[in-house]
Amino acid sequence: MKKLIDVAMGRVKADTVIKNTTVVDVFNGGYIKGDVAVCGDKIAGVGEYSGDTEIDGSGKYVMPSFYDTHMHFESVMIRPSEYLKLAVPRGVTALNADPHEIANVCGEKGIKFMLEDVKGIPCDVHFMMPSCVPSTPEDKAGCVLGASDVKRISEKYGLFGLGEMMNFPGVVNCVPDVIEKLEAFEITDGHAPSVYGNALNAYLCGNILTDHECETAEEAREKISKGMYVMIREGSQTKNLRTIIKAADKKNLRRFLFCTDDRNVEDLCELGTVGNAVRLAVECGMDPVDAITVASLNAFEAYGIKNHGAIAPGYSADLLICADNVAREIEYVFYQGRPVAKNGKPLFGVTPADTSPLRGSVNIKPVKLGDLDFEFKKGMPVMRVFPNTVVTETVRAESKDGLNLMCCIERHGASGMIGHCYVDGFALKNGAIAQTVGHDAHNITVLGDNAEDMLTAVNGLDKDGGLVLVKNGKLIGRLQLEIAGLMTEAPADKALKVRAELFKALSEMDYNKNIEPFMLLSFMTLIVIPDAKLNHKGLFSVKDWDYLYRG
Amino acid sequence: MKKLIDVAMGRVKADTVIKNTTVVDVFNGGYIKGDVAVCGDKIAGVGEYSGDTEIDGSGKYVMPSFYDTHMHFESVMIRPSEYLKLAVPRGVTALNADPHEIANVCGEKGIKFMLEDVKGIPCDVHFMMPSCVPSTPEDKAGCVLGASDVKRISEKYGLFGLGEMMNFPGVVNCVPDVIEKLEAFEITDGHAPSVYGNALNAYLCGNILTDHECETAEEAREKISKGMYVMIREGSQTKNLRTIIKAADKKNLRRFLFCTDDRNVEDLCELGTVGNAVRLAVECGMDPVDAITVASLNAFEAYGIKNHGAIAPGYSADLLICADNVAREIEYVFYQGRPVAKNGKPLFGVTPADTSPLRGSVNIKPVKLGDLDFEFKKGMPVMRVFPNTVVTETVRAESKDGLNLMCCIERHGASGMIGHCYVDGFALKNGAIAQTVGHDAHNITVLGDNAEDMLTAVNGLDKDGGLVLVKNGKLIGRLQLEIAGLMTEAPADKALKVRAELFKALSEMDYNKNIEPFMLLSFMTLIVIPDAKLNHKGLFSVKDWDYLYRG
Repeated sequence: MKKLIDVAMGRVKADTVIKNTTVVDVFNGGYIKGDVAVCGDKIAGVGEYSGDTEIDGSGKYVMPSFYDTHMHFESVMIRPSEYLKLAVPRGVTALNADPHEIANVCGEKGIKFMLEDVKGIPCDVHFMMPSCVPSTPEDKAGCVLGASDVKRISEKYGLFGLGEMMNFPGVVNCVPDVIEKLEAFEITDGHAPSVYGNALNAYLCGNILTDHECETAEEAREKISKGMYVMIREGSQTKNLRTIIKAADKKNLRRFLFCTDDRNVEDLCELGTVGNAVRLAVECGMDPVDAITVASLNAFEAYGIKNHGAIAPGYSADLLICADNVAREIEYVFYQGRPVAKNGKPLFGVTPADTSPLRGSVNIKPVKLGDLDFEFKKGMPVMRVFPNTVVTETVRAESKDGLNLMCCIERHGASGMIGHCYVDGFALKNGAIAQTVGHDAHNITVLGDNAEDMLTAVNGLDKDGGLVLVKNGKLIGRLQLEIAGLMTEAPADKALKVRAELFKALSEMDYNKNIEPFMLLSFMTLIVIPDAKLNHKGLFSVKDWDYLYRG
Repeated sequence: MKKLIDVAMGRVKADTVIKNTTVVDVFNGGYIKGDVAVCGDKIAGVGEYSGDTEIDGSGKYVMPSFYDTHMHFESVMIRPSEYLKLAVPRGVTALNADPHEIANVCGEKGIKFMLEDVKGIPCDVHFMMPSCVPSTPEDKAGCVLGASDVKRISEKYGLFGLGEMMNFPGVVNCVPDVIEKLEAFEITDGHAPSVYGNALNAYLCGNILTDHECETAEEAREKISKGMYVMIREGSQTKNLRTIIKAADKKNLRRFLFCTDDRNVEDLCELGTVGNAVRLAVECGMDPVDAITVASLNAFEAYGIKNHGAIAPGYSADLLICADNVAREIEYVFYQGRPVAKNGKPLFGVTPADTSPLRGSVNIKPVKLGDLDFEFKKGMPVMRVFPNTVVTETVRAESKDGLNLMCCIERHGASGMIGHCYVDGFALKNGAIAQTVGHDAHNITVLGDNAEDMLTAVNGLDKDGGLVLVKNGKLIGRLQLEIAGLMTEAPADKALKVRAELFKALSEMDYNKNIEPFMLLSFMTLIVIPDAKLNHKGLFSVKDWDYLYRG
């Protein structure tokens, strides 16, 4: 404290000074001019200062760096250390990561890997404790984490809070294991799509702080009026910003946050994450300083983290020096007083964690051709899919024409259990797609129009898993995801290349081009989103909360 | 949690429901209609509910109760329990009390008394640890609390934070004892009148959260831009609201709080405390919901207290039911789910702490007539006082005519030390005023135009202390302040009566009627406010930080 005060008074030179710059004032909602003095890991103040290192800030904007309040590394399909090498230079120095997917596959071992992989990286990575492993009792994931596991693991690794509580019925119906989890945490993120009125009140009595699932501005305003922080989510699949931002005004602005939730590596590279949300918000008419406030101060306030998220004396020196006022062009990223990225490139190295305990996660009973066949009965229920949504419908089909067969193969305990259903709307011809990414249990999903190609695809996944494309009996594309069948251990640039090849191969496949097959398939096994979904036991109606049939 | 969720879902009746009411929504900045359900000490939600007890809320407003973020019970001259019997029915259910005055007189014993006196009272009284006892090394208070004492006492009694850090030079000059105090607390209130620029940066690097001493809107905006919460103070002596509120706008509203600091019992009874600030703010053009937000949510956020300050599920059921939207007419005050005041009357009793350890605090060497005489020398420095300010000037006087003699008699260690000076502007004739309230050391201050009346006044203070008026040799008014010479142990209604008699007696005295003598005298010994001030050693120039003379 003494040295910081000495620097602030001007008695001692600062370590670094950004001279003659324009500072974003998130407290008053405007700009101030001056020199920004940095001492150690903190900001000493904005005023007139000189430093051992001086950076010319004239014509530049200095603003607090960004906080992505809810995301899953696994969704990016690259490992956390590779993600951060891209995200930090794009302005993020704090995030809440829910390692929910890997926990479903590998439990504690997976969480431990994630923590180790980000060690030493200049970013405040707050890991949440996954709250719902598995998502529902109907699922067969790689492990089950009850209240006692959740408490033990969270304490052991010093996790930040309880991750998104997706089990809304468990909360409002006071399921003991759920209540025990909620009571054990001070911070719990929410997940409450289309929950309103007294049911929302009940959910919030579970001490739930945030929501990132609003679909309308009215829903966002109700959630805010009931005390939730509303995360404006702008992911790759779910893009809520343009809708939800309509709920924000000067009076309730402090209750909004930004998050990405699920973002693919292409969007991460091209658009960034929270910075992209800032710019989109400004496009939608939000004042740039307000958007930056949502991206920084608001998030730290929501989670009770003091002295972060502003350019002010005593605050953590996590900041951006930008050529513009919406972080389009970020020249420097500072984290705890040190420059950690320059002109989009990281200035830090990483020490990736050992992936070997997470490889070979695919554990299935050998699949035979006959396992991938399923008798069609006239009038049977089938799953109908649509572009741009992961919601499906249950319909009755009169004929098999134009339908595909989808199978969900349990892959954690080699039980040999396989669920089957026919799918309308995919229109895949002469091929198959298989993948080990399938929320949230991450069993194998395979879809095709013939058993031979489907078997080739499943076998192409190998022990490590990934995404596989088969056309006319030939494996034409593969992205290996050897970390739990969810993430590649390849560096980001290589992953981007392999993904580009995969999408090129995909373009050669014959299917309904209005859909994105990998993403869509990854949600076709998630039985908390309506309506017809397939798990390893059979076709399930989420509305009826029962199987349409088993098998 | 289970019962609360059951009530929120409507499966179980609430304990209390306020039916068909208008609820102040501090999150969106508006109003919502509905029933407010209370279960145990918490709000279950706003919706459609029924309860064991139902209160008709139609035509009424339900709002969070108020938080007075900085105050001193001692300034009210009644004991904390009596204060709260008046303040809670006027809408306050949380306050930060700095027992700085009593700590200067009695140290730990005084702090302990304050804590005990409020026990069981339905109000979150957060006691701060006085940071500056004595105010300066030049003062002779009843005790000295260094960093180790401050840490020990605070830990022993579980105090809330470090009270207003008035020792600005100590902070910016890194005095070790001051730095040690600052480093020991997560929450520290500030006190930084007219501190700007790099000096303000340095002060804030001491991890100081708030300020209640802004004199201009510009000062407030600078403090906010540097991360401080600005308390808008509306006391009895210092009324900053009309000025400071000009700094508030929609963008920085979240950074403002209300406080009273020093408020007398008459204002408390007639106007209330934070409610008065709310109404004044609205008079100045602030939206009523914004004013209530400043009075509630903002304060809890500033101090990191979760789930307080709003009418929302899971929030502490601390609320007001009012006939109007600015708490002019408060019908009910709820604290932790129970009604604790109705139509201005408390529904709770108090168990006042034993005052005997704090009585007889006046410990002086017997004063003789000659002690209250002081040689006037032509051209000597004298103190000039003015109406409506506690700032004084140092002037040179050519003659004694029209001047009064003031003495500061050390009253803690019977040292016999007495400081003397002449005062211009008081114009007291044929009498004397003596009092044991004299910030911050609370030695005896006596002022008069003749030694005989001054001696009668000092003797009239007795061992217990208080305020005394003497006219023409006769004691004509007295308010006994037997608790440390600062507070009366009389109930508030009796105290009001005695004070009314005292002010009646005062009206019969011959002095400059533009000043309020008791208040003014209480600040004439405080050598941190410019310029000429008198302590037990002599006349001190605050600007020069040295004695003009000793004796």
